Amino acid sequence: MILLRRELGDVLREHRQSQGRTLREVSASAAVSLGYLSEVERGEKEASSELLASICGALDLPMSQMLSHVSDRVAESEAVSALVSLRAARRPDLVRASAA
Amino acid sequence: MILLRRELGDVLREHRQSQGRTLREVSASAAVSLGYLSEVERGEKEASSELLASICGALDLPMSQMLSHVSDRVAESEAVSALVSLRAARRPDLVRASAA
Repeated sequence: MILLRRELGDVLREHRQSQGRTLREVSASAAVSLGYLSEVERGEKEASSELLASICGALDLPMSQMLSHVSDRVAESEAVSALVSLRAARRPDLVRASAA
Repeated sequence: MILLRRELGDVLREHRQSQGRTLREVSASAAVSLGYLSEVERGEKEASSELLASICGALDLPMSQMLSHVSDRVAESEAVSALVSLRAARRPDLVRASAA
């Protein structure tokens, strides 16, 4: 199952790291705790809409752009899933072999 | 402040209604309570990633497509906000007058 919080966390972490900023810097700027931001980036916690807006603001990242990046990542994951399902349907013997 | 849960709720409701389906039908298909789905659609509750995936599945709506629609809506809201800020910066008298 593709989980939004994981994709979202990856996008937020990538943006922060591309700016060469630490968790501490961004969490202070966004007025969220360092632990919370870290959990959101690792996809372990669902960010509330308010705190997500605050984190995007601290990263100077328009929410629309962040969501567009997340959409692209999810589309890639969906394509991979579809391919795996297709292969499994065509060659169930391979799926059985890899599961063995 | 642009809130993700509101934009997301609007997109989910629009998709459901475009399919001519009721809250009851989709909530049963997604295995979520009718009240929960209704609150999510109204932007009153943050949907967990798991339940969001389930709702998208029930709507036969790829999550990437849903996120792309949300991104477009948020981009429109950001453009409106930017325009309002620009006007306020250029004509603070108008902002004072409308606030009076």
